[in-house]
Amino acid sequence: MGIQNAIADLISSLGQQVTRSKSDLEIHGRSESHFSLSPPDAVVYPETTAQVAEILTICARHRCPVVGWGTGTSLEGQSQAVLGGVVVDFSRMNRILSIAAEDMTVTVQPGVTREALNEELRATGLFFPVDPGANASLGGMAATRASGTTAVRYGTMRDNVLALEVVTASGEVIRTGTRARKSSAGYDLTGLFVGSEGTLGLVTELTLRLQGTPEAISAAVCAFESVGDAVAAVIDTIQCGVPMARIELMDTESVAAVNAYAGMGLAPKPHLLLEFHGTEASVREQAETFGMIAKDRGGSGFDWASRPEDRSALWTMRHNAYYAILAARPGARAIVTDICVPISKLARAIEDTRADLERSGVQGPILGHVGDGNFHAVLLVDEHAPDEIMRAKQVSERMVERALALGGTSTGEHGIGIGKLGYMAREHGGGWAMMGAIKAALDPDNIMNPGKLVPPRT
Amino acid sequence: MGIQNAIADLISSLGQQVTRSKSDLEIHGRSESHFSLSPPDAVVYPETTAQVAEILTICARHRCPVVGWGTGTSLEGQSQAVLGGVVVDFSRMNRILSIAAEDMTVTVQPGVTREALNEELRATGLFFPVDPGANASLGGMAATRASGTTAVRYGTMRDNVLALEVVTASGEVIRTGTRARKSSAGYDLTGLFVGSEGTLGLVTELTLRLQGTPEAISAAVCAFESVGDAVAAVIDTIQCGVPMARIELMDTESVAAVNAYAGMGLAPKPHLLLEFHGTEASVREQAETFGMIAKDRGGSGFDWASRPEDRSALWTMRHNAYYAILAARPGARAIVTDICVPISKLARAIEDTRADLERSGVQGPILGHVGDGNFHAVLLVDEHAPDEIMRAKQVSERMVERALALGGTSTGEHGIGIGKLGYMAREHGGGWAMMGAIKAALDPDNIMNPGKLVPPRT
Repeated sequence: MGIQNAIADLISSLGQQVTRSKSDLEIHGRSESHFSLSPPDAVVYPETTAQVAEILTICARHRCPVVGWGTGTSLEGQSQAVLGGVVVDFSRMNRILSIAAEDMTVTVQPGVTREALNEELRATGLFFPVDPGANASLGGMAATRASGTTAVRYGTMRDNVLALEVVTASGEVIRTGTRARKSSAGYDLTGLFVGSEGTLGLVTELTLRLQGTPEAISAAVCAFESVGDAVAAVIDTIQCGVPMARIELMDTESVAAVNAYAGMGLAPKPHLLLEFHGTEASVREQAETFGMIAKDRGGSGFDWASRPEDRSALWTMRHNAYYAILAARPGARAIVTDICVPISKLARAIEDTRADLERSGVQGPILGHVGDGNFHAVLLVDEHAPDEIMRAKQVSERMVERALALGGTSTGEHGIGIGKLGYMAREHGGGWAMMGAIKAALDPDNIMNPGKLVPPRT
Repeated sequence: MGIQNAIADLISSLGQQVTRSKSDLEIHGRSESHFSLSPPDAVVYPETTAQVAEILTICARHRCPVVGWGTGTSLEGQSQAVLGGVVVDFSRMNRILSIAAEDMTVTVQPGVTREALNEELRATGLFFPVDPGANASLGGMAATRASGTTAVRYGTMRDNVLALEVVTASGEVIRTGTRARKSSAGYDLTGLFVGSEGTLGLVTELTLRLQGTPEAISAAVCAFESVGDAVAAVIDTIQCGVPMARIELMDTESVAAVNAYAGMGLAPKPHLLLEFHGTEASVREQAETFGMIAKDRGGSGFDWASRPEDRSALWTMRHNAYYAILAARPGARAIVTDICVPISKLARAIEDTRADLERSGVQGPILGHVGDGNFHAVLLVDEHAPDEIMRAKQVSERMVERALALGGTSTGEHGIGIGKLGYMAREHGGGWAMMGAIKAALDPDNIMNPGKLVPPRT
């Protein structure tokens, strides 16, 4: 039995760093989502790249499945060992290796979390901007091509990973990219690994781009009469070249949830939450420009704050919105959707989703990274009501169909894992087979996170 | 003979769109660089994606090499048919297919040039920012992962291509990416094709990100006592978060060349040329911030201009600098180098290169996209003096070695083609074999631009 032989070899090579304890297997069999438990056969805690190479060499020899694990916060079951095998938990590879302040880059091990990184960077005047909400590991964020509230200004992981060290499916250690800010030297292997969800290799080191902490930050909130008006204001603002750092939508249902949860007292209307980064003067100018645009689009209650405590309250509310929404229906579980469309289609996508939710009798407040055209309906379901779950899943499926019909994608930032696998053929057509061909070329024995992302081997 | 059979089939399928005229073959056998002529066996001028698919189906059947051609302005011999076969010239696929102003995207055929696109966009208030100097085709710019003077603000082709239509090596038409601004749906095939130099397939359609034309633009020029001081000013400016649209270095030798060529009357010192985009107020603030930083670094003669004619004169000078440098040595040919390093190493890379040039007796004015850490020494050689050419090539080789030793890359924006193939193993190590594995998976018969970018098939 390949898996058992692999584990025996791992134990003889790595000893105590391999565990088969029931609790460890169960923790690593869970996900943040609605997928069923799938405990691996063992969990390994490497401490060095050489150990990761050793793990992959052993697993390749025995054709044992290998699944990378950061903090387990992925939302589409990316880190679940659906075919058993070994989970490689990177929590002990959590060192910041070097900070190059002049180059505005940092090199980290994959287990460093984004909050730990930003804590460490504080004294340098630099920060790492990608913020998916969860305190995810940077290796996991790269694997999922994560983004979040700040992508409208600073981009996603695709834009912020400069170089990687990767252990391939055969146990070879390679480096992709360089510390230079750009390169035309051949295929963009860094870009290929970012978003590959551990199906091509395991990332053991990341070099990331950093940003200078802005001299001034201000936040703003504004209510609109409709989602359409709010989105129109977003489009106008982007077209005016206002370099917003964040621009988030909460629909009326989400606003109700945060009002109930945190006593925010917001008007029961769709709201935009914004953040501006820059010099004192430019932040003021950005906020004023947005204020004028918002007024033209019927916005009300526009208010901007540059006091840190006010900003902090606003973004705490936004980050807690998911929990506020969950609290809106005690005992419910959430199915989180994640479509992304061209911004000109965003109002329509949200309005059609809202109408569908009402027709289907599914509760689903909507939160959106609207500067990117990306939004989440958080579908609240009673996990003991199969009919309700089915209706929610149908809503989710129709959201994806709508996104694809509007020129968008099934996932803006949560990735494929097992949750979105069923949409890949529809979204990519012949491109999905091409992904399968790349996977087969780089992982011929299909040991790297098998059962995810690419077409099943025939 | 595969190639001849392929051409016979192409003629019977595409008739007059296939040519074997001597002049056409010669034109398509040339490059802008120092590589020898390599005329293809035929040139085909497709007018539709279906015709490109037909061409590749025929060439796949006969295992005939296929090389894409935009405007022939690549600098590393990317479009030369080194193993013969068919050149696919995209000049007749030059339509702008759709402009989505609200989404700030445009979809074009690959033969559209960047100047033609910007001309067409003028009325919309949008522009396409990537500017490699040459009026290259957008298909070619994507293939080479081009960038240029504006990458410091707007990124390279990597950052500005959202989606592609591609014809694969087997003649299948696929689409990569969507019109949404971001996606986590599987491998980033768009990113894989950008920079692949026609070795994986031919691009037949591109969806590009656009930018809003800034309300205000100003340009500035400033002299420094040394390259080190100029680079230090660049680093300070970036760290202050000044969103410069362009920041270019000309070393003393380049300044002498443009003074002689265009009577610019600049002080015989290294200069920075800058451009600021934004609102009136923010452009003023950016220029003032830079002015203060420049003063701290010993800058002199700082002057900023917002009159379009003054800006235009400045950037005409910069764009003509290559010709000015060529004119500095009548009859000479240029070997253009293109290394890119972490910006903290840039001054050292330039100073070491300058010292090497002097030791080697090679004339090589330096121009740099210094915000990216990228610079070009334009090595002037007498093409009838083999010894001189050898010394220049040795300088070029040492520049690459220096770039790699400093954590950089052999090419910031010109790509690999045949000119940089010899450095791929050194730059990528095991990653180069990985590129070869991807190539073999997607183009098993090695018909797509063979002899370029990846390791030779064994």
